[in-house]
Order: sequence, then C-alpha cells, then structure tokens
Amino acid sequence: MAQKPQIIIIGAGFGGLLAAQTLAKADVEVTIIDRNNFHTFTPLLYQVATCALDASSVAYPVRSIFRDNHNVHFMLGDVTEIDHEGRSVTIKAGETSYQKWYDYLIFAVGSVTNYFGSKSAEEVAFGLKSAADAIRLRHHILRCFERAAWASDEQERDALTTLVAVGGGPVGLETAGALHELYNYVLKQEYDDRSPRLRARVILLEATDKLLAAYPASLQKSAAKQLESLGVEVLFNSMVEKVEPDSITLKDGRVIRTHTLVWSAGVKASPLVEKLDVTLNPKSARVPVEPTMQVIGRPHIYAIGDVAHLLDKKGQPYPMLIPAAMQQGELAGKNILRELANQPLMNFHYNDKGTMATIGRRRAVAWLYYKIELSGFLAWIVWLVFHLILLLGFRNRVVTFASWVWNYFTYDRSVRIIMDSEVTPRDNPATHRVPDPAPQDVVVAKA
Amino acid sequence: MAQKPQIIIIGAGFGGLLAAQTLAKADVEVTIIDRNNFHTFTPLLYQVATCALDASSVAYPVRSIFRDNHNVHFMLGDVTEIDHEGRSVTIKAGETSYQKWYDYLIFAVGSVTNYFGSKSAEEVAFGLKSAADAIRLRHHILRCFERAAWASDEQERDALTTLVAVGGGPVGLETAGALHELYNYVLKQEYDDRSPRLRARVILLEATDKLLAAYPASLQKSAAKQLESLGVEVLFNSMVEKVEPDSITLKDGRVIRTHTLVWSAGVKASPLVEKLDVTLNPKSARVPVEPTMQVIGRPHIYAIGDVAHLLDKKGQPYPMLIPAAMQQGELAGKNILRELANQPLMNFHYNDKGTMATIGRRRAVAWLYYKIELSGFLAWIVWLVFHLILLLGFRNRVVTFASWVWNYFTYDRSVRIIMDSEVTPRDNPATHRVPDPAPQDVVVAKA
Repeated sequence: MAQKPQIIIIGAGFGGLLAAQTLAKADVEVTIIDRNNFHTFTPLLYQVATCALDASSVAYPVRSIFRDNHNVHFMLGDVTEIDHEGRSVTIKAGETSYQKWYDYLIFAVGSVTNYFGSKSAEEVAFGLKSAADAIRLRHHILRCFERAAWASDEQERDALTTLVAVGGGPVGLETAGALHELYNYVLKQEYDDRSPRLRARVILLEATDKLLAAYPASLQKSAAKQLESLGVEVLFNSMVEKVEPDSITLKDGRVIRTHTLVWSAGVKASPLVEKLDVTLNPKSARVPVEPTMQVIGRPHIYAIGDVAHLLDKKGQPYPMLIPAAMQQGELAGKNILRELANQPLMNFHYNDKGTMATIGRRRAVAWLYYKIELSGFLAWIVWLVFHLILLLGFRNRVVTFASWVWNYFTYDRSVRIIMDSEVTPRDNPATHRVPDPAPQDVVVAKA
Repeated sequence: MAQKPQIIIIGAGFGGLLAAQTLAKADVEVTIIDRNNFHTFTPLLYQVATCALDASSVAYPVRSIFRDNHNVHFMLGDVTEIDHEGRSVTIKAGETSYQKWYDYLIFAVGSVTNYFGSKSAEEVAFGLKSAADAIRLRHHILRCFERAAWASDEQERDALTTLVAVGGGPVGLETAGALHELYNYVLKQEYDDRSPRLRARVILLEATDKLLAAYPASLQKSAAKQLESLGVEVLFNSMVEKVEPDSITLKDGRVIRTHTLVWSAGVKASPLVEKLDVTLNPKSARVPVEPTMQVIGRPHIYAIGDVAHLLDKKGQPYPMLIPAAMQQGELAGKNILRELANQPLMNFHYNDKGTMATIGRRRAVAWLYYKIELSGFLAWIVWLVFHLILLLGFRNRVVTFASWVWNYFTYDRSVRIIMDSEVTPRDNPATHRVPDPAPQDVVVAKA
C-alpha cells in the first residue's frame, strides 16, 4: 500500500486552519505546525487586552479543532529550516529537533507588527498581534493604574493613566474605543478612593488627516464622530517621532506623557518568510505566488494569507485580511487535492464582502460590498452578527460565544488579574519624594 | 476633625478578606496590601491546573470586592519591613518604596508549600498554592503531552504522560482525581493520532498506610476505593527520597519515571512571619497569639489564619484551614472595633462544621460535624453546595459559578492553551536518535 500524500501546514492561523479543514476529509495525512498549541481568533484580541475576555476565549487548541479528523496531526514547535529541494521541514520542539518530509507544503505563518523601522517604538510600544501580546498589555494597564493610585506626583499619575493608540485603521479604532470603555465602566469606579481622583485619557494618533483610509469620506467622518462621542481624543496629522517609557514625542515636537502606547499602525509579513529562500516582492516584502497560490518557482509550496504577494485585477496586492487568508487557505487545500487527482489547478478569486470596524459599544462603521454604508448601532449589529458567524465556523464555540455576549452586554470585565512577571518591563524608577511627610500619610521613598 | 483609625491588613486571602469585610462598614480606614491584585479562591486551584477553569474564575480583583466600600483601599506590592515600635509597614511597589503608618495591623499572609527540607522536590516539583502555581502546572502537563505525542522512545513517552501527586490529604486526592479526569475525558481523545497510543498513569503517593489521616477509618477506606475506581494508582507507605526532572526515587528504592510531580504533602507558614520579629512557636513555626488573635507582646498586631499559632481545648494548634482563617479574620476585625469602642476583647472559638474532600466527578467523602459520615455521590453534592455557598459569599460570583457548573457538568476543558514561557524549566534534552530513518517519517535529531 502506497503511503498517503504528506502535507505540512506551517501556521495555525485562519489560512492554515481553512487549508487543514479542506484537506481533513481527503485521503491525505496533514500535519499542522505552530509555535502555539492554539489558534487565535485575532479579531477579539483587543477584548482580551481590555479585560473583557480571557485569552482562552479567543484561543482554541488546534488538537480540539481537529479532534474528529484522525488524519490531521499537530506539532508544537518552531520551524528552523525549510529544505525545498529535499522537501523537508526542520522543527525545534523544546530541546529536540525533528525533520519531517512533505509532498506539499502550505506556508501560512501570517504577519507581525510593523514598527516601520522605529527602534524605540519596537522596544517600548505594545503590539496586539498575539494572545501573549494582549495579556502583556492587559497586565501593563492594570499595573499602571495600581501605580497611579499611590503616586504622589500629579504629572506622573496622569502619565500612568494616559493610554495612546497609534494608527487610525480598524484595529486602532477598536482598541482606543475598548480602552476608553475599560476605564469608563470599570477602572474609574475602583480607583476612586484616592484624592484627587485618577483622570484617564485615551488618545488616538493618526498620521494623515482622516481615519480608515480605505473607507468613503462619509464613514471616515462618522467614525471620528463616534470615537469622540465616546470620549476618545483623536489627533490627526500626528506622527510618532520618538517613544520613551514615559512619553511620546511627535514629529512636530509635541510631547505626550504616557506609559502605554499601543501600536496598531500596521503589519508586515512574518520574518519566517526568509526560510523559504525566495526573492520577496521588494515593495511588500511578501512571497510572490502564482494565482494558484503556489510559490513562484516552488510548485510544491503554497503560500497563503499575509505572507503571499498576489496582485488583484486592479494591480494591487490582495489585502492582509482574514477573509483573504481563509479563501486562499481553502484554495490551496483544493489545489493540492486537484493536483493529486491530476486535475487542472484553479486561480484565486477574492470574494470580498466589504469591510467594517467597530468603535466600542454600539458604535461601528461598515461598508458592505463596497456599496452599502452603515454607521452607529446598525453597523455594530452587523459587526456582531458577522463575528458570530465567523466564530461558529469552528467547533465548540457556542459556550465561548455565549460567555462573550454575556460579558459584552453586562459590561462585565472580570478578567482583571495581574499574573507573575509577564509584563514587558518598561517602568522607570520613581525618584520623587514627598517633602515633610505627615504621619498617617504615605511617604514615597527611593527604591 | 481627628483622623480615622488606620488599619493595615497584609494579605488578601480568606482571613484578610473577612477582616476587611468586618471593618468595611465601620468608621476606620482600611488598607489591604497584597503582592497580587486579586484574592485567590484556593479550593478550586486544582481545577485551574487541570484545564477546567480559567485563573480569572478563581481569582477576584481585591478592588472589585471592595468597590462599594470607600474606606477600604488596596495597595499592590511586597511588604519589606514591619516596624512594630514605629507602627509602620514598608511596601515595595515596583521600583518605589512606600512607608505606611497604622494604628492596628492584621497579619494574614498565609502559608506556602512545605517540601519538608527536600531541596530536590522544591526545585522540581509543582506546588499548588497560588494561581501562578496552577497555571505553571497546567502548561507543564500540556507541554509534556505535546512532547509525548512525537517522542520515539517508549519509556520516555510513558514518563511524559505519568502524573504523580504526593500526599494523601484532601488536596492530593482532588488533584489526583482531576488529573485522571483531564487525561481520561480530554487528552486521550486528542493525542490518539500517534501509534502506539499514549498511555497516561496517575499515581498518588502516601507516606503512611492510609489516606486522609484525620478521618474515620470507614471514610479512609471509601476514599481509597473511590480513587481506584476512577483509575488512580494509590501507593501507600511510599515516601519520596529524591526527585529528578524525569524520575522520582522512593525511600525503598523504587523508581517512578515521570516528568510531573505535584507536591500536595503539606504547607507551612509563609516566610514573611520573620518580618514580625517575634519568637515563633518552635514546633509549628507559626506566630504565637493570644486567644484574642493579638500577637503575644504586640497588642496592636493581630495574626490570623495559617500564620497564627493558637491551641484549641485539646491542646492542639488550630488547623491551617480556610474556615479557621475566615473566623479568625472576622474576630480580629471585631476585636479592633471593640478596642476602639473601649469594649473588652473576645476570645477565639472555632466553629468547626467538619471536613470533606472531593475525589473527582461524583466522588467525595465528607465528615460533617465529626459525626455524620458521607461518601460517594451524596458527599460530592454536599461538597458542591458548600463551595457554592462559600463562592457566593463574595461579590460577583454568580457568573463565575454558573460557568464553573457548566464546565463541570459538560466535561468541558476549554482552558488548554499554553502561553509563553511561564513553565518552570524542567525538561532534559532528548538525545536519542531513531536509527535508519525512512522518508516520510519523523526523525529525531540532537538539538
């Protein structure tokens, strides 16, 4: 009996998962490799960061998803080498290295935060691309509030409770909105025992003169209006020049004192693309692929999602968005099966249903099929239903979704524990001292 | 206007929390200091460790609990010094040190895992005293199974899926039971794609010839029977001599190959007791207190719970159990208020309603009021109701409890994500190599 065709999928994101689901019912052996044992539902990471959801609510064990598919295997580890001539992948799992051969490889490693070359931002700012990122940000915000509650220097206090998001795209908008809600509905009540009361500010920085660059002007304006109605300060034409642990300097010289900078200004293909040993597209730094999703010159390797560079009919690369990754993942799976069946391969056609962005509770904008413009409550409901459908696309999501809806509607923010030292260290020592301390008061001393 | 009496409570465990709740309605200012921003519902930590609950379900932010009590403040930090003559406490919060004066101090720092002097156990074994402990253990177990799924050495595979708990007390029993259920209801299904299948063993080691030393013989026997009916191997008269990352050597020379040793053999007072600068009881290493819970010779300091050494009518120190801590916390709060009102102080009387231990699903033993003996399903229901009542004693528990009951009854173990590098490193490099690798197979290579 001939051995079944071996297919390796690197990356358990949306693209990799859809590819695996497409292949799961076929007569092939599939091995998914990821450095995490879970798939992350990234659209809700901002809710993990803002204490609304536990990480486990948006992170699903890959093994659970494929529990009933006995031809789908999972390996936890880091890919250290891809040998396209020998058709093998080397994986480091703990201290052990494994080499695994493939007939077809699906390369779906996704993207990382793009700091656009700013070293200081990379060191200090918080990305929001992974569950670990989200938990790190959550811990940091809570720690800042704890410090602010006892800080005696008023400027320092305000800096600790000033939260800045960079980037006027969908992620920046929803992060800024959620941060404001976290403060407004939860933290304000619990940190009001000190005098004067803590004042929290949420600021959104956008480099251009409008939010949501790809949207029509009416929705751009609506988004700005909805954000401001929430209480978020939107600063247009504001580019970050320098980031320090307790301040941001803008290009025009303005300084914002803050300890929390969330970087949602953009993403770029994962540095893992270099393991493929192909010439990347010089503009996008993504892997050039045929319309079949095969890597150019590497017919046994498919690249999909954020790492794949493919131009649409207008000559633009397909966007780094979840729906594109999912559809490409499905196509890669199908094309492998077609090749195994000696059928001609199919080309990618993007079924784009539009775009939307949520801006906190009961606020959103949606641009459906690039025709219908919605904003406010109606857009928010559409956003909700869309994410419900996406969530239910996987197994075992009902419980999760119920708890999510419950949290969302009850304003519950129960996930507010600070655990161990996961937080990226970015605190500078407080060196101020209150002169002439009165007994019964708190004295601040140098560490 | 005279300043309100300042009361500092160190520790937000059950004792500290009850003291704070007693004082919350009075005309005093209360400051709770803890190194975590949350109270931990420790009886359910084993469920966090075995993937049944998120840590946030058993850890409640202290600020949330006292959200409506504006005279109760919270400070996140480590106590570095207690000056009983100057009546002040020094707290290190991040890089800043604060000094805070008190009129009364309640010392409620609880206990830590007691390794009985075994250095090797302390280094390698997993305690189960804090939420961080529980998460560390959870990650470790899941990582072991991931490694076992691809390990080619059969002995090594078995060692990775052998889970050992030490100590035949209630914590050891419920941990062993829960570990077995985790494997039996969840992991077995998801790690069955490799051949031969993973075999998990759960072993409980007990130094004497019976479980639950304090219980009547009939319940001891019932507990052992229930554990074995579940599939747990109980080894009596088994004392741990030496612990290594991949094996345990018992006193009689037997060796158990395992990567996971859960240490539930006992607790001892937190090393923080030394900050009080009093002579500890030489036997218990706890702080000697008057029957009023005042530290002997330090009338302004109350010590409660696991740190307090006080003898009952039979001349035995009160047990290190939650009900004792809660009742002592309440008494300390009341006695401070009585002192402020110039009323005589009251002595501690322990209202002991009995003792119980759960042994996995639908299995438990209970000894109510030290008269009524229950075992099996009925005892389990009593355990459930009792913990429901305890949980509901605090704010905001309804949601948590609902999700807990849901998980419990649906056999759901959704919390199975391994996040970053929190896991205590205890993995030894795999150095074996499969000879003569066939293509399409996995080759193990040295790291």
